[in-house]
Amino acid sequence: MIENINAYLIKDEPYYQPTGGEVDLFMAAYRLRMPMILKGPTGCGKTRFMEYIAWKLQKPLITLACNEDMTASDLVGRFLLDADGTVWHDGPLTLAARYGAICYLDEVVEARQDTTVIIHPLTDDRRILPLDKRGELIHAHPDFQLVVSYNPGYQSVTKDLKQSTKQRFGALDFHYPDAAVESNIVCHESGVGDDIAAKLVGIASCSRGLRGRGLEEGISTRMLIHAGALIRDGISPHAACGLAMTRPITDDVDIQRALDGFVTAYFGP
Amino acid sequence: MIENINAYLIKDEPYYQPTGGEVDLFMAAYRLRMPMILKGPTGCGKTRFMEYIAWKLQKPLITLACNEDMTASDLVGRFLLDADGTVWHDGPLTLAARYGAICYLDEVVEARQDTTVIIHPLTDDRRILPLDKRGELIHAHPDFQLVVSYNPGYQSVTKDLKQSTKQRFGALDFHYPDAAVESNIVCHESGVGDDIAAKLVGIASCSRGLRGRGLEEGISTRMLIHAGALIRDGISPHAACGLAMTRPITDDVDIQRALDGFVTAYFGP
Amino acid sequence: MIENINAYLIKDEPYYQPTGGEVDLFMAAYRLRMPMILKGPTGCGKTRFMEYIAWKLQKPLITLACNEDMTASDLVGRFLLDADGTVWHDGPLTLAARYGAICYLDEVVEARQDTTVIIHPLTDDRRILPLDKRGELIHAHPDFQLVVSYNPGYQSVTKDLKQSTKQRFGALDFHYPDAAVESNIVCHESGVGDDIAAKLVGIASCSRGLRGRGLEEGISTRMLIHAGALIRDGISPHAACGLAMTRPITDDVDIQRALDGFVTAYFGP
Amino acid sequence: MIENINAYLIKDEPYYQPTGGEVDLFMAAYRLRMPMILKGPTGCGKTRFMEYIAWKLQKPLITLACNEDMTASDLVGRFLLDADGTVWHDGPLTLAARYGAICYLDEVVEARQDTTVIIHPLTDDRRILPLDKRGELIHAHPDFQLVVSYNPGYQSVTKDLKQSTKQRFGALDFHYPDAAVESNIVCHESGVGDDIAAKLVGIASCSRGLRGRGLEEGISTRMLIHAGALIRDGISPHAACGLAMTRPITDDVDIQRALDGFVTAYFGP
Amino acid sequence: MIENINAYLIKDEPYYQPTGGEVDLFMAAYRLRMPMILKGPTGCGKTRFMEYIAWKLQKPLITLACNEDMTASDLVGRFLLDADGTVWHDGPLTLAARYGAICYLDEVVEARQDTTVIIHPLTDDRRILPLDKRGELIHAHPDFQLVVSYNPGYQSVTKDLKQSTKQRFGALDFHYPDAAVESNIVCHESGVGDDIAAKLVGIASCSRGLRGRGLEEGISTRMLIHAGALIRDGISPHAACGLAMTRPITDDVDIQRALDGFVTAYFGP
Amino acid sequence: MIENINAYLIKDEPYYQPTGGEVDLFMAAYRLRMPMILKGPTGCGKTRFMEYIAWKLQKPLITLACNEDMTASDLVGRFLLDADGTVWHDGPLTLAARYGAICYLDEVVEARQDTTVIIHPLTDDRRILPLDKRGELIHAHPDFQLVVSYNPGYQSVTKDLKQSTKQRFGALDFHYPDAAVESNIVCHESGVGDDIAAKLVGIASCSRGLRGRGLEEGISTRMLIHAGALIRDGISPHAACGLAMTRPITDDVDIQRALDGFVTAYFGP
Repeated sequence: MIENINAYLIKDEPYYQPTGGEVDLFMAAYRLRMPMILKGPTGCGKTRFMEYIAWKLQKPLITLACNEDMTASDLVGRFLLDADGTVWHDGPLTLAARYGAICYLDEVVEARQDTTVIIHPLTDDRRILPLDKRGELIHAHPDFQLVVSYNPGYQSVTKDLKQSTKQRFGALDFHYPDAAVESNIVCHESGVGDDIAAKLVGIASCSRGLRGRGLEEGISTRMLIHAGALIRDGISPHAACGLAMTRPITDDVDIQRALDGFVTAYFGP
Repeated sequence: MIENINAYLIKDEPYYQPTGGEVDLFMAAYRLRMPMILKGPTGCGKTRFMEYIAWKLQKPLITLACNEDMTASDLVGRFLLDADGTVWHDGPLTLAARYGAICYLDEVVEARQDTTVIIHPLTDDRRILPLDKRGELIHAHPDFQLVVSYNPGYQSVTKDLKQSTKQRFGALDFHYPDAAVESNIVCHESGVGDDIAAKLVGIASCSRGLRGRGLEEGISTRMLIHAGALIRDGISPHAACGLAMTRPITDDVDIQRALDGFVTAYFGP
Repeated sequence: MIENINAYLIKDEPYYQPTGGEVDLFMAAYRLRMPMILKGPTGCGKTRFMEYIAWKLQKPLITLACNEDMTASDLVGRFLLDADGTVWHDGPLTLAARYGAICYLDEVVEARQDTTVIIHPLTDDRRILPLDKRGELIHAHPDFQLVVSYNPGYQSVTKDLKQSTKQRFGALDFHYPDAAVESNIVCHESGVGDDIAAKLVGIASCSRGLRGRGLEEGISTRMLIHAGALIRDGISPHAACGLAMTRPITDDVDIQRALDGFVTAYFGP
Repeated sequence: MIENINAYLIKDEPYYQPTGGEVDLFMAAYRLRMPMILKGPTGCGKTRFMEYIAWKLQKPLITLACNEDMTASDLVGRFLLDADGTVWHDGPLTLAARYGAICYLDEVVEARQDTTVIIHPLTDDRRILPLDKRGELIHAHPDFQLVVSYNPGYQSVTKDLKQSTKQRFGALDFHYPDAAVESNIVCHESGVGDDIAAKLVGIASCSRGLRGRGLEEGISTRMLIHAGALIRDGISPHAACGLAMTRPITDDVDIQRALDGFVTAYFGP
Repeated sequence: MIENINAYLIKDEPYYQPTGGEVDLFMAAYRLRMPMILKGPTGCGKTRFMEYIAWKLQKPLITLACNEDMTASDLVGRFLLDADGTVWHDGPLTLAARYGAICYLDEVVEARQDTTVIIHPLTDDRRILPLDKRGELIHAHPDFQLVVSYNPGYQSVTKDLKQSTKQRFGALDFHYPDAAVESNIVCHESGVGDDIAAKLVGIASCSRGLRGRGLEEGISTRMLIHAGALIRDGISPHAACGLAMTRPITDDVDIQRALDGFVTAYFGP
Repeated sequence: MIENINAYLIKDEPYYQPTGGEVDLFMAAYRLRMPMILKGPTGCGKTRFMEYIAWKLQKPLITLACNEDMTASDLVGRFLLDADGTVWHDGPLTLAARYGAICYLDEVVEARQDTTVIIHPLTDDRRILPLDKRGELIHAHPDFQLVVSYNPGYQSVTKDLKQSTKQRFGALDFHYPDAAVESNIVCHESGVGDDIAAKLVGIASCSRGLRGRGLEEGISTRMLIHAGALIRDGISPHAACGLAMTRPITDDVDIQRALDGFVTAYFGP
């Protein structure tokens, strides 16, 4: 089993529209190898941002979606039984620390404490990763950086990063792009024209006003791209918005009706 | 152990009565390989719909009934001990992603978070499945599509898809077919005549009015087919409706009496 | 390890007294291979009924008492380590589906969700059992039928079959037999005469009036047979009723006194 | 590893003082191989009774103290890895069923459901024990009997035998022996004279009056024997009663003072 | 792996100051091999007492600190995989029972039920330890004795020995030694003079008055020895008492101030 | 796998600014090998202090971040399967005790009881570590010392050291350094000049006043160093303070605004 770190390099420039100084700030943080938190709502582009950064830096990017059943071994590695006995297999975090990738832990607040605590010695000036089970002490590769993300409008009281974890990181806030930028993104990614993209963005903007008033989240850029692609494929705007935007986002019939009203307002009855 | 993806091909056309534009919409979503949610009550035909679609597309269909004890490994695969040491065995999701099947996760809200989070990288434009334990990064086969289903009248507050999962999917709503279509289905599937089928559909329709008022769900199409088949086998309509419809659906004596009343109303005392 | 399905054949006709049309109805359900639920109180004869049916059909009967610690692997099978590596061993459900037995899951509401969900694809017209861990798709033997049982007066709100499970089954209600039939059963099974059997049945009938008023369940037919057998062995009716009926059924001293009163009423002081 | 059932034979007659017809009743139950429940407070002699019965019947006695961490495998057996692969090892219940011992499950209400449900097919007229993991169906040896015990003043609402379990058993109530018998036992077992034994029994009797009023249980016969043995060894009655009776039974200083008062009342200040 | 029981012999006489007849009483209990409970607050010398007893009896002493994650296997032993397959390794309790050591389970109320129940057959006149997983029945060595300890002011309602466990034991109460004895101990163990030892004991005595009024426990003898040793090493009494007594015992600033006041009262400002 | 204890030696003198007599007091505690607790808020320098002490003593330092999923085996060691069967691998605590390192358990209150109880025999005058699973009794190396840390303003009622654990330790309180010292640290570690360092310290000081009034913790020294390093890299003070101080520390928009106000107060608008 070859653990080839270059498989995690991003070959083609990902499409990313900067919305402020976030690229420059991140570059400065990377120069200091400061561990970073990306905060922002679902589907606003945090993962795409990291792909863009990794491409720009020409560093491999190892991404993990955190979840509450993930164990420390899922990050760090484990012994697996082989014909010659147990053989150690690096986990993704170890791989990144050993060979100098950016390790991106998506939705880190979902992880259990043993996952978040395991990253502590990598996030202070020691920059080490003790593989207790293997008895090895890894000094992180100079190129290694740790990045985590979460959605601040989201996590419950029981799910939050420990203060002693937070204080090890710098942080960047992400938001949905403004209307013009988001419209550009929808055009570029779905292939629809400007006018349809603008209408979709308008509907999303209305939906985001319902956040916290029946909707947990507004319609994301990703959903707009889905709807646009269906429209370009010949599906009617109403059917496309239903399939890609209003039906996935909620099961509440009243809220669906309100969202359908936004669709009618933009695309006619 | 040959993991022959073609074993999952559906040879014969499944009997399916479209109730709206759902087939065309799904075909458009499949052309975009958009991940899809099928929403609708128990027994309304979501699974049959997927079998029909898979047959129409001539793609293998791998179905999994989700449950809260299912682990990420049950989806993705695991190492099993062999004479030559540990050997990797693809799980059903990996199989589908690797060889280009449609993977259908039935009642996905039953699954734990680690199951639903594992599908994230397969449901955005990366279309990858990282096999962390194996150190392999699968790029999904161009034919692969992920479809999940759930019953929106059902799930509790503690069981819902995360918003960051929902926003990755398109969605189609399913309902019980209207009386004429449902009657056709009952005739076709159970072998009873039109009049008996219409009476059974009438009883089901009454029962669906009790939903939320003592019945968790109304009588499903599947139960009508069961009852019809018993009647064709010579069982009296009252006994057949009791065995196949009113006794399985509830333990509440009052509700059973109400349902028996519907049976009497249609089939006489 | 020979998994000989014929070991599950029932050689001798079990003693069973039909109490209505339940045998004919079940036979019709079996002809359709309809999955069946048997509902009824503890000790009223559901297990005996299944043994009688299996003997009548000359099909092997594989019985499992469900419990909340039972895993899907306990039903479906697992890999076990052998000299040649891991070897698959069919679980009881797999055995039944593969070789055409009736699989009877006693007290199915005790099982966890992963057990009840595992049976879904066996209970619709697919009649398949995916052995995910083995990568095998079993098409059920034409003789295979699935039967489950539970006690409807029993299960708590947290323990109930999911609606999507119930709707896959036909159902038969079971009750304690009426006095004459029950008296016959007690004579036949315990060897006591008609008069003693009738008295025991009378006591049981009184006890069933206390159900829900201090007694969780009334005295079952099985307990009457126990008491009768002790009386035939020379134990006094009072001591026999104490040992076999009133002491096992409750720890409440007041209820025991009431039950003792019933014994005295029938057998004298 | 020889699993020699005869190691469980009781060679010497255990000292047991019958307190009623319990020996004869049990013998009748054994002739019917009726599963039995022994009910009674801690230390009143249930275990000793079973040892006496097993000696009288000249049958091996396999005793297990149940606890909530005991698994079905702890009862039934498991595969263990050996040089030749996995080898099956019978658990104590399997051993008893296979070779015809009495299996005594002490404090059965402590066990989890999977333990108590596993005994069901052994406790009806099937008298079988399915070893699902091994694919073997054991027909119980004709000498096999199952006996369980619990303390009815003890178990919480969450810990009780299921009604469907209770109804499979006969039951015998056990109490502390009356003063004369208990005094005899204390003399015989501890070696003290009649007068000291009578005083110890008097103290115990007083303590049992505090049951439910500060003491969970009264002082048991076993504790009296301990105290008697210390006195015979030369320890003063006050010190012996403190060490063996009043200090172990409670940590409550007020209750200890009350118990010390009983000691002073019988043995002087 | 040599399991040499003599490694557990205590070579040199431990320093122990008897505070009553506890040594003689324990010796009498040992002659009867009566299982013993040592009750008393943290740091009052229970462990030291057992070391002294073991040295006096010249028996090996095997000590285990119980905790809620300790399993029955941690006590009894387990199979470990070896080049020749699985090999049994005795746990500490088995070791003690087999070869005749005193087994001391410290803070036994912390253990789970399966741990405490496992000791039952060793604590009545059977004196056996069934190794169910190995199929072996150990008859305890004549020298074996079981001793457990707990802190009665400590355990919560959910953590207490079961009554059926307590009644198998004799018990001895332990308290902090009186001032003169404690002062002697502090001199002997820390090397400070009488006056400083007396002052430290005075501070501890004050702190014990705060027990239950802000302090969970008073300052223990062990802490006084720590403080004395620091003072002898040249640290000022205030700094030594802070480091070794008042800072470890509480995080409450008000209580720390009260304790500092006691220090000032004895050692001046 | 070489377990080379010298890999844990700290080669270069870590930068540490003493804030009182803590170094001398710790040295005295080390001379007595007294186990030590370091108490203090996140990021105030406890870990750095231990690195400085270890360098000064020229002893290896083995650090572990405790977490609630850490098992006793993670500390003590385990058997791992090898070509020759199972081979024992020392855990970090065993390594430290065997070869004479300082073992530092960071945030020890996060650990489960079995972790904290395992250290008991190492923290009294026995100074032993029983490896129960290996059957080995380690007498700690004369150089070994155990140090633990926690944040007293932090732990919940459910997470606290047991009193019987606390009483085995000496303790030192740590606080944030005073302004002049902290300013020196920020200059030295980040490379900014005195004036900027003083401003950053001023902002931190303001933020610490919000502790308990919206902020769980104030801004730590580590965050100031991060911000200083960004400023030296050319990032504007506002952007640097946002990225490194105010965004990571809280998600609350009102608190962020208050913190931004502090930044403006020191660096201008």
